[in-house]
Amino acid sequence: MAPAPSVSSSITARLEVQARPTAVSELTTAIEAAGGIVSALDVTHSGHERMTVDVTCATRGEEHAAQIVDALRDLAGVRVERVSDRTFLMHLGGKLSIESKVPLRNRDDLSMAYTPGVARICEAIAAHPEDARRLTIKRNTIAVVTDGTAVLGLGDIGPLAALPVMEGKAVLFKRFAGIDAFPIALDTTDVDQIVETVCAIAPVFAGINLEDISAPRCFEVERRLRERLDIPVFHDDQHGTAIVVVAALTNALKVVGKDLGAVRIVLSGAGAAGTAVLRLLLAAGAVDVVVGDIEGVVHVDRPGLAPSLRWTAEHTNPRGVTGTIPQALVGADVFIGVSAPDVITGDDVATMGPDSIVFALANPRPEVDPDDAAVHAAVVGTGRSDFANQINNVLAFPGVFRGLLDAQSHRITDTMLLAAAYALASVVTDDELNPTYIVPSVFNPEVTTVVAAAVARAAHESNGTRPADDDA
Amino acid sequence: MAPAPSVSSSITARLEVQARPTAVSELTTAIEAAGGIVSALDVTHSGHERMTVDVTCATRGEEHAAQIVDALRDLAGVRVERVSDRTFLMHLGGKLSIESKVPLRNRDDLSMAYTPGVARICEAIAAHPEDARRLTIKRNTIAVVTDGTAVLGLGDIGPLAALPVMEGKAVLFKRFAGIDAFPIALDTTDVDQIVETVCAIAPVFAGINLEDISAPRCFEVERRLRERLDIPVFHDDQHGTAIVVVAALTNALKVVGKDLGAVRIVLSGAGAAGTAVLRLLLAAGAVDVVVGDIEGVVHVDRPGLAPSLRWTAEHTNPRGVTGTIPQALVGADVFIGVSAPDVITGDDVATMGPDSIVFALANPRPEVDPDDAAVHAAVVGTGRSDFANQINNVLAFPGVFRGLLDAQSHRITDTMLLAAAYALASVVTDDELNPTYIVPSVFNPEVTTVVAAAVARAAHESNGTRPADDDA
Repeated sequence: MAPAPSVSSSITARLEVQARPTAVSELTTAIEAAGGIVSALDVTHSGHERMTVDVTCATRGEEHAAQIVDALRDLAGVRVERVSDRTFLMHLGGKLSIESKVPLRNRDDLSMAYTPGVARICEAIAAHPEDARRLTIKRNTIAVVTDGTAVLGLGDIGPLAALPVMEGKAVLFKRFAGIDAFPIALDTTDVDQIVETVCAIAPVFAGINLEDISAPRCFEVERRLRERLDIPVFHDDQHGTAIVVVAALTNALKVVGKDLGAVRIVLSGAGAAGTAVLRLLLAAGAVDVVVGDIEGVVHVDRPGLAPSLRWTAEHTNPRGVTGTIPQALVGADVFIGVSAPDVITGDDVATMGPDSIVFALANPRPEVDPDDAAVHAAVVGTGRSDFANQINNVLAFPGVFRGLLDAQSHRITDTMLLAAAYALASVVTDDELNPTYIVPSVFNPEVTTVVAAAVARAAHESNGTRPADDDA
Repeated sequence: MAPAPSVSSSITARLEVQARPTAVSELTTAIEAAGGIVSALDVTHSGHERMTVDVTCATRGEEHAAQIVDALRDLAGVRVERVSDRTFLMHLGGKLSIESKVPLRNRDDLSMAYTPGVARICEAIAAHPEDARRLTIKRNTIAVVTDGTAVLGLGDIGPLAALPVMEGKAVLFKRFAGIDAFPIALDTTDVDQIVETVCAIAPVFAGINLEDISAPRCFEVERRLRERLDIPVFHDDQHGTAIVVVAALTNALKVVGKDLGAVRIVLSGAGAAGTAVLRLLLAAGAVDVVVGDIEGVVHVDRPGLAPSLRWTAEHTNPRGVTGTIPQALVGADVFIGVSAPDVITGDDVATMGPDSIVFALANPRPEVDPDDAAVHAAVVGTGRSDFANQINNVLAFPGVFRGLLDAQSHRITDTMLLAAAYALASVVTDDELNPTYIVPSVFNPEVTTVVAAAVARAAHESNGTRPADDDA
């Protein structure tokens, strides 16, 4: 699949052109001939001889954008004044600000927000530490923590280069759940130091969202943080993915009329996401799961089995399948890929059982071309926004944390994750459910509230916590 | 000095009272008789028989507030429905929020702010790390870091209880300098761990403001962070205080027509603030400084001199003064106190030279009663808002960091601190200058811009940096 022109690579060119009847159509024709898609055109200044035009178009990337600009420059009477990259413009100066919620108009305000009045608030918290959730930002604040080692598909690009993603995540937390999230990009990849650092900065936060930390270090970071902290620790690459996969699978199975406990599932990927998906599938009642990685199917007798796969080998594959992933796929009901591009083909999907389900979530290039898969499978989902059934973590993490914060939960459990998955699945009503609509839109406002309510309920049951008391 | 009723301890009481002509005056009379000061009164509901009144009054503290409420309760026909503490109300839910600067209205916005578009921003920063200041929040973001060991006058109250102060500081940074400041309250008091933690979380920040870390640990924390980080590290308790003291002294000396290099200065306090004030005074050209602490005057032959005082002993006291602070004060031109209440008396001030200057900055109880001092001294300043010449760090730190961030400075030097002090002094014009007006109001908008410009200029000269380029 050659990439289509994308808004995420769109440019705005400011052009000075000769004022003549065909001036605008010449521009748009040239852009379209060069493969760009015009999305906006404004004449910002017009005179008798010359006019200024801002034209915005989607491109296939930076090289393609340069070709389009060259094509414009080659037009007679056109001068390219300036080209802006819309995505870069959007990120200029960063995507977050920290704002004051209290007015400081005069000395009286100062004396309440800061000294001397603030001392009474400090004394109240010193006497009753749990009041920090009432009298500080802790109530609604989480950290988005990365070490920059597994950022998107870019790999180990370091903490500074990871920041735009962490800021973006914080933007999503605010937009979809009203949560104040702050990006912490760590200048260390050492597990001990990550754990010590996060524990040291934990007091101001009511939750930790780990992000883009490479496996297997991410497992130990999460495990040790959960042991030491009294706030929930969530690794989105693991648990967020697991929630949306289980939600999507719940609805897909409803579409094809099958039962989770009875289906044969092949899971490609035994890293962070794969392991978390596996654990939540088992917690949800899946029985026959075969996990595969780059060396083929995981089973207890596989030579040189990595220690991190021992648990997987012992808790999956009840029929003792061996061989490759395509071999395991024969007769299976469900394929879930959280691994790499082109692991299977459409022909492999053809060997699956009737009414098969294929989730190919590697991004941007899935485990199988979704169009090829759809020839044979009953339900197909991907991680991409340009196909039906986008299985996107944004459906999970905002609501999960909203629920955890609302319940002032000190931890997160599989029960809560599962509650989130079922709640997310429930947002798609029976009337709406069909093979191309198994998960709701991320812009459906019900998603966050329904997921949050389910997680808060599970947290209250688990922790015996109660909603906050807002009285002063 | 018994404390006067303060806005910082004000309450709002909701009362149900009998509807009769004297109802309101009975309330205000009762409050005033109990020593409160009424600042607002609203009838929020009125009927034939009863009405509801919200009355707000300043009190001397929580015990006094309770007495006032009891006095109201004792009035015939009055029922106290509810009492709110205005300061607590202001702090409910914390004083900061983290907001998104980019719209997320639809899928196109998502594809630019987050995946896939954000990947291009990450790649740009990976290729050119200095672009993080252009494309992330790093440009305008600092950390307010504490370990909660020396918070206001409250001492070691821990990180959670320190949070309201750190949030307040962040509010001030935003209000006075447009800076995005995030509170980091560390769950450790170990110097090594503080240094490691701050270094680990540094990538997202363009500056570190240390706050309320007890001496002498604060010196080592600052020194080691400055060695390891490529962003400026400022300890407000030290350098903020030093800047405002030198600024105030510059103007006070102008008032009395004396020269810094020629005056005799007695400095009470050899902790974090005292040491920083001393260093900046020497950098500004002071020659005859005598430092004293709880054991008296610091000199090279003092028995049992602490190692941290060795530098002070060697760089001060050129006349070899010994004895107590009051003894050292005889004939001195300037007294600066950054120490403890009641170190000297008005009689001691009387022994100083003609046209003496007294800065008694211990807060809330100064080194000498400012009214007593004013009988003998030409210029008196305190840290309190209820006397003339409030020498307040808020005059310094917002502008200093604004200048450092504008210049994208990688460090902070004594030259920059001194530039800040002189710039702050310059905000008071010759026409305005008089013994009761040596520093500007914190609400004077020129303060931040003038200080910031001076610091940025000094930073550019020192670092060879240049203003940011905003082109996309």
